[in-house]
Amino acid sequence: MKNEEFRAYAHEFVDWMAEYLDQIEDLPVKSQVNPGDIRNQLPNQPPEMAESMKDIFNDFKNIILPGVTHWQHPSFHAYFNANNSRPSILAEMLTATLGAQCMIWATSPSATELEEVTMKWLKGMLGLPESWHGSIQNGASDATLIALLTARERVTGFKLNSSRSSNRVFRVYGSEQAHSSLDKAVAIAGIGQQNLVKVAVDDQYAMDPEKLREAIQKDIDRGFQPLMVMAAIGTTGSTAIDPLLPIAHVCEEYEIWLHVDAALAGTSLILDEMRWMVQGIEKAESFVVNPHKWMFTNFDCSAYFVKDKKALLRTFSVSPEYLRTKEDEQVNNYRDWGIPLGRRFRALKLWFVIRSFGVEGLRQKIRLHLQLAQWFKERVLRASIFELCAPVPLNTICFRVSPTNKNKLDLDALNKELLESVNATGKIYITHTMLQRRYVLRMVIGQTEVAQRHVEKAWKLLHSTAEELLSRKND
Amino acid sequence: MKNEEFRAYAHEFVDWMAEYLDQIEDLPVKSQVNPGDIRNQLPNQPPEMAESMKDIFNDFKNIILPGVTHWQHPSFHAYFNANNSRPSILAEMLTATLGAQCMIWATSPSATELEEVTMKWLKGMLGLPESWHGSIQNGASDATLIALLTARERVTGFKLNSSRSSNRVFRVYGSEQAHSSLDKAVAIAGIGQQNLVKVAVDDQYAMDPEKLREAIQKDIDRGFQPLMVMAAIGTTGSTAIDPLLPIAHVCEEYEIWLHVDAALAGTSLILDEMRWMVQGIEKAESFVVNPHKWMFTNFDCSAYFVKDKKALLRTFSVSPEYLRTKEDEQVNNYRDWGIPLGRRFRALKLWFVIRSFGVEGLRQKIRLHLQLAQWFKERVLRASIFELCAPVPLNTICFRVSPTNKNKLDLDALNKELLESVNATGKIYITHTMLQRRYVLRMVIGQTEVAQRHVEKAWKLLHSTAEELLSRKND
Repeated sequence: MKNEEFRAYAHEFVDWMAEYLDQIEDLPVKSQVNPGDIRNQLPNQPPEMAESMKDIFNDFKNIILPGVTHWQHPSFHAYFNANNSRPSILAEMLTATLGAQCMIWATSPSATELEEVTMKWLKGMLGLPESWHGSIQNGASDATLIALLTARERVTGFKLNSSRSSNRVFRVYGSEQAHSSLDKAVAIAGIGQQNLVKVAVDDQYAMDPEKLREAIQKDIDRGFQPLMVMAAIGTTGSTAIDPLLPIAHVCEEYEIWLHVDAALAGTSLILDEMRWMVQGIEKAESFVVNPHKWMFTNFDCSAYFVKDKKALLRTFSVSPEYLRTKEDEQVNNYRDWGIPLGRRFRALKLWFVIRSFGVEGLRQKIRLHLQLAQWFKERVLRASIFELCAPVPLNTICFRVSPTNKNKLDLDALNKELLESVNATGKIYITHTMLQRRYVLRMVIGQTEVAQRHVEKAWKLLHSTAEELLSRKND
Repeated sequence: MKNEEFRAYAHEFVDWMAEYLDQIEDLPVKSQVNPGDIRNQLPNQPPEMAESMKDIFNDFKNIILPGVTHWQHPSFHAYFNANNSRPSILAEMLTATLGAQCMIWATSPSATELEEVTMKWLKGMLGLPESWHGSIQNGASDATLIALLTARERVTGFKLNSSRSSNRVFRVYGSEQAHSSLDKAVAIAGIGQQNLVKVAVDDQYAMDPEKLREAIQKDIDRGFQPLMVMAAIGTTGSTAIDPLLPIAHVCEEYEIWLHVDAALAGTSLILDEMRWMVQGIEKAESFVVNPHKWMFTNFDCSAYFVKDKKALLRTFSVSPEYLRTKEDEQVNNYRDWGIPLGRRFRALKLWFVIRSFGVEGLRQKIRLHLQLAQWFKERVLRASIFELCAPVPLNTICFRVSPTNKNKLDLDALNKELLESVNATGKIYITHTMLQRRYVLRMVIGQTEVAQRHVEKAWKLLHSTAEELLSRKND
């Protein structure tokens, strides 16, 4: 492709991009296609000869786009948001153009040093201990695995990296509501999911620190070695807040690595009024927050902070000759801070976002989302056909249809029907979870552009659809 | 940021991007800054209030850019290339704008199904077995770890995922020249680097299959359990080609998982004349090739192919309630195909590249690079002051200054000086490795836009700088 052709198409793409973002609300939030619909429109064989960008772009618009679920639609209330923002997209355009592979300092000093600077900024913005060390990872799954491996190595005097033989059986602890990435991490690290202890939660779905202490003591009595506790600040199911300080005290007492998963909620620590969630954080060993969730920065951008940088590096350093440089003693080579070797220039978009919003601009967005969540919660509480299923400390409301007169209704089936009905309209997208064996709807209010009117729209749609379903059942 | 402001800046960025790509040859390939130079120009605190995109973009151009090593410069001959191309950049603009997080089918059916289609295309283009299953991973480090974990689980009847206790001591095999990601993978998986057996190489730096057999038999005799062999098709040091068929026979005989690392070289399999490298591939269990290296597709885009999809899924599936969908039985949910949960829409750029170049267009590029590498090799062979240090089956030439009259020269120091001298000019960027304990220069010819004139320029610079260094030493 000639440069002038690139320039012309890039301008055409920009107009499409601006139009897409401007008119995204006209699109169905959740793609309405069926399995195979997209694949069946695409040829089985690649083209031998070059095709024109005109044809490719047309296929993108006509074939691919209908199969896209629009995560940047303000009515995306599913999962946790993975937001972008206009400044972040602008940065991604530059990152893609530079195409720098930033595995070590020498292969782009700016990428390393801007990562240092943005991680330092973020640490300050969130009130994390000044002495901690930050790096950008692919996601919280990677971060949790990195924490677990570092804990494993440090406790064995860095012997498991070199030798598998250890007579110890390690035990890892998270609440019953801990994210599934913890299950995955203990499997990958060879610790075994049987050795992941799911600690009981209280009636707010938060870890019970006394139950944690009992589990640890019991394991020690049985000859196991407690390795790591993961505390969730904002669980995925219901954004429950594990009580960090009492958990930290238990970890301190037993000398166990405390990893804090604040993948979503961490961003809200830019608000002073949310800092209560991390009281005791200085006793933790590691912490993860995903700016790609709630800080309007394109996926992937997960920030992992660790107290003991030496242990981290000793766990992940490999230094083959072909990667050595004369600056190795003076700089951070982020290839040694995690699992992958290759790295995109991801700090750039975070830098664009923080500067373009300003910290105060970010605070205003987060405050709005928290207020809107409370607004929605109030509606649920006041509506006779709904019940609230969990506290709402953050931006996620867990609720379900549960009319006063239940009339032998299968509430799980009914709520599932409600979810599928509203999602099929394309107007909003919500997801579900199970809490206390009940099928529960999750409404998340965290999209970059979400405003009062979107939440009102969602509420009206959910309420009227629920009423309709109920009246049909009562017929 | 208002939409019209975004549109205006995005157009401004596009003009900058086109100009950057057009005039990239005027820039120094390797950034010439010193440690701290970039960091020291950036404020320690993030701004409270929003800053203008004008200021941010100016800082990008004035502060960040001088600290970027220009991987897309045609004279980037270092490491292995991580290429982009104009069609790939265009696709990345769309991917960033959609901001879709494609962890499961439902969260963007197009991303899943386009990944299926492009992986099927790639399989055909590279001559991989039709029945294999492909997915896009972050990089070859992830792919190798995934292969190792799947092998570990399958051989234990999927017990290590659930329980750490196994009395077996696993052994993993790669050549002395295998990529460092294998060292990292055995450490992460809890197998221990002591149990990574580095098999001796022949005089072409390729694994000796007889030495492999001996090592395996010896391990079995000692009570160890051989788990996986990694064969490298194109080592990182010198692009040595491990002899796949004899290695496959050994693996077959002992029933060991054979993983093939063709991260760079895999792309060249689009040429019939290069297929000899993978004779016996149908006996392998898994294979990785990085389109983000030599197929002109932005990092990250690593294609991992596996024979036993069931074993892969059983190793990596976790299915918490909040991720379940009604289509789960009908579709591929790629979250279950590897380590991370979150996924960018990475198939789009590969689709853009394959269609925009056409397979024949890709073949022409790869053929050119292979020819240029032979051209450079001939120059080395004919020059009295240089010696060739390894065969050149692909796009990488390992060589060093080694004049007939060595005159007590420290050749390692001399070659290091040569490397630093040419890199300091900013005109080219090469790196080094160690082969048979000798410091050796690596010249890679694989950048998207590299042409004869760039290789000639590199040759002239290297030759004249070497002569100058030698004449100074002889003074």
